[in-house]
Amino acid sequence: MAQPSIPKGTRDFSPEEMAKRNYIFDTIREVFKLYGFRQIETPAMENLSTLMGKYGEEGDKLLFKILNSGDYLKDISDEELTERNINRLATKLSEKGLRYDLTVPFARYVVMHRNEITFPFRRFQIQPVWRADRPQKGRYREFFQCDVDIVGSDSLLNEVEIIQITDEVFNRFGVRVCIKLNNRKILSGIAEIIGESDKIVDITVAIDKLDKIGLEKVNEELASKGIPQKAIDQLQPIILLKGTNEEKLNTLKTVLKDSETGIKGVEELEFILNKLKITRVRSELELDLTLARGLSYYTGAIIEVKALDVEIGSITGGGRYDNLTGIFGLKDVSGIGISFGADRIFDVLNQLDLYPRDSTKGTQILFVNFGDREESYILPLAMKMRQANIAVEIYPESAKMNKQMKYADSNKIPFVAIIGESEMQEDKITLKNMETGEQQLVNLQECINKLNNQ
Amino acid sequence: MAQPSIPKGTRDFSPEEMAKRNYIFDTIREVFKLYGFRQIETPAMENLSTLMGKYGEEGDKLLFKILNSGDYLKDISDEELTERNINRLATKLSEKGLRYDLTVPFARYVVMHRNEITFPFRRFQIQPVWRADRPQKGRYREFFQCDVDIVGSDSLLNEVEIIQITDEVFNRFGVRVCIKLNNRKILSGIAEIIGESDKIVDITVAIDKLDKIGLEKVNEELASKGIPQKAIDQLQPIILLKGTNEEKLNTLKTVLKDSETGIKGVEELEFILNKLKITRVRSELELDLTLARGLSYYTGAIIEVKALDVEIGSITGGGRYDNLTGIFGLKDVSGIGISFGADRIFDVLNQLDLYPRDSTKGTQILFVNFGDREESYILPLAMKMRQANIAVEIYPESAKMNKQMKYADSNKIPFVAIIGESEMQEDKITLKNMETGEQQLVNLQECINKLNNQ
Repeated sequence: MAQPSIPKGTRDFSPEEMAKRNYIFDTIREVFKLYGFRQIETPAMENLSTLMGKYGEEGDKLLFKILNSGDYLKDISDEELTERNINRLATKLSEKGLRYDLTVPFARYVVMHRNEITFPFRRFQIQPVWRADRPQKGRYREFFQCDVDIVGSDSLLNEVEIIQITDEVFNRFGVRVCIKLNNRKILSGIAEIIGESDKIVDITVAIDKLDKIGLEKVNEELASKGIPQKAIDQLQPIILLKGTNEEKLNTLKTVLKDSETGIKGVEELEFILNKLKITRVRSELELDLTLARGLSYYTGAIIEVKALDVEIGSITGGGRYDNLTGIFGLKDVSGIGISFGADRIFDVLNQLDLYPRDSTKGTQILFVNFGDREESYILPLAMKMRQANIAVEIYPESAKMNKQMKYADSNKIPFVAIIGESEMQEDKITLKNMETGEQQLVNLQECINKLNNQ
Repeated sequence: MAQPSIPKGTRDFSPEEMAKRNYIFDTIREVFKLYGFRQIETPAMENLSTLMGKYGEEGDKLLFKILNSGDYLKDISDEELTERNINRLATKLSEKGLRYDLTVPFARYVVMHRNEITFPFRRFQIQPVWRADRPQKGRYREFFQCDVDIVGSDSLLNEVEIIQITDEVFNRFGVRVCIKLNNRKILSGIAEIIGESDKIVDITVAIDKLDKIGLEKVNEELASKGIPQKAIDQLQPIILLKGTNEEKLNTLKTVLKDSETGIKGVEELEFILNKLKITRVRSELELDLTLARGLSYYTGAIIEVKALDVEIGSITGGGRYDNLTGIFGLKDVSGIGISFGADRIFDVLNQLDLYPRDSTKGTQILFVNFGDREESYILPLAMKMRQANIAVEIYPESAKMNKQMKYADSNKIPFVAIIGESEMQEDKITLKNMETGEQQLVNLQECINKLNNQ
């Protein structure tokens, strides 16, 4: 018989990995709740009509499509089959697909449930998504997203809170981060004043290379993208933008003074940074004009988080968008959201070894099993320990001592209780510390106290 | 634009539903952990070679199959297409399917990771499964299973613990249940002594009707199934089995005295019931010979849980099985497991309204927003409250008071903080109880104390 396997790009999660992942999700969820966010879940399968066309042509290809049940060929003619138009045929073979992200299902949810929702709607959602991407290191076909959004409000206070949440989450993890901020309106303003609205991506890409290739090469690259010399001259203070966020904003105010949109963006960022000062955010905050993620989607704030002590891409990101639900016919639902990258955060915490001891704690004590009489003696003890909130196992068979000890060892159980004839007579427990090898004779209450103080 | 919808048989979960479901899963998980069970997760998609043939012919049809990515027709000839052999074609169109239950993926997991696992392996798994069943009331195409199993040990202590866990879970929920017990070996013994091994299902089905149709009709039904009069006569003490579990076991001992298997089953049940007496299980325990769920699968204990105060099918069930992993070539891994039916437990808790107040608690206080100055004043207060573990929202805009109050009301936020000019001057908060309408002028610490004592 062939050794079973799992589809490439998917993963099993072992008990150790699950404990770590639960710690991550629980921490994030706790912070979300402190800020009044409310959890929803949507089905793994969505109608393809909901998903198709929402992620571009490439995204459509990466959707996992579900073969219709029953006679999936019944509405397809022989000609259609042998014509082999893969895409058109797929729409007949399949009417459902797996969730590709949490944003489109959220938009669909808001539209379907708009009469039950009181806006502004603060929701979070932690669920897996599936993409038929080519699997590679750190990229999976099934992975979790943790999204938090506030929709139905244009207030910049939402931006402030989203950044506070981000700060709080990483503070709880003990991960030092830099939260990078930008604003789409500033980028639009820059493009406007130099008269090159369609070149904004080229410009940010070039500016981003300043540290690596130097000013001269950046200017060369800009020229090679068809940006005229005059515009490149105007861009110099922006390319060389340096200093504190305040200094940068002051420079931008001067450069963008003729662009209403640009000035609006500067003011928005100023408002956000001022309010964040009041809330004593602990993370570094850095205005970064090269931040342009999902530019076509974001309309205001753009946010990205970088870990300071680990070499890894952005671990969280998001921004403000207009018109979340327009694709489903409901207009004017704007919002701001951010997505925590669970897999990368997992990698960061692993590398820095930042899991609190409690978060990965499993069984605390194993009762060795010497046979039926001892079992009957142990069962009520185990019950009382569990009532004291201690995770307890009884080895299920009177196997050789050596085997039972090995079981405790392999499963990282820190204490073993040995109860034989003499312990039963004295109403005591021989408690063995598996790390030090030390043994102690204690009564039940002493044992509970010892374990609860670990 | 068409109103978006979700696939039939699937569900969105609203914040209220999520809070209730999280309470259910968290409670179950907590109990599992106290007994040393360790969580795993497996991918939503499995190779179809892992899933096919494991659930019978009907099950194969109910698997959701995933259309291969890329040119899914490339290895299929025109003849194969126009021949329209739906099943054979499906194996070429699709090589992955969605998880149909948690047992087969668990078996696959054990085989793939057998070198990392120290047996006995105590695992739990809480994940959705998908079945292309015809949707109907209470039956969904996506639903959650909560499975807990101990594999790699034949000890009956495992049965005892599985029943303890079941008792503890429903005790925590406050749901009164009857845990019904049976043993496959007793059923085999009965069939053996009357010489009708293949009629055991017919016999249990007929016995089950005793209360409804009476002894005479039961005997008629048995005869109609081809069971000879002599065997029916022998069955009389079993059909009429009554009294306490002890009395029933005593009767069975007499009736089954010539069947070694049958007596083994009686002894097993006796052992389990005796040990459970020591642990003071609070649920009703009832030996029920009509319990025959998954008969072809179970080899020893059979367990099923019925809610006493709600009319609903079994809400939890399981039993002992041999050879979990034989289908994947790994022999002799026996075990016992039980599966908690999350959807039915949800229905039971809803009907009996058994959610603790804390479990569905969301935001505790909303700060009314009167404008920019007040926002700056409120932000640090909100931060301090959150540090005291209180879930806080600030209404993001200085909208009309009425609108802000309505928001608190709709989202069931129990308190509202009103901070205007005079409150800011006095360094106080006007705290409004949304239920009683009562208003109090308090300072921050008083406010925190009041909320934390709710």
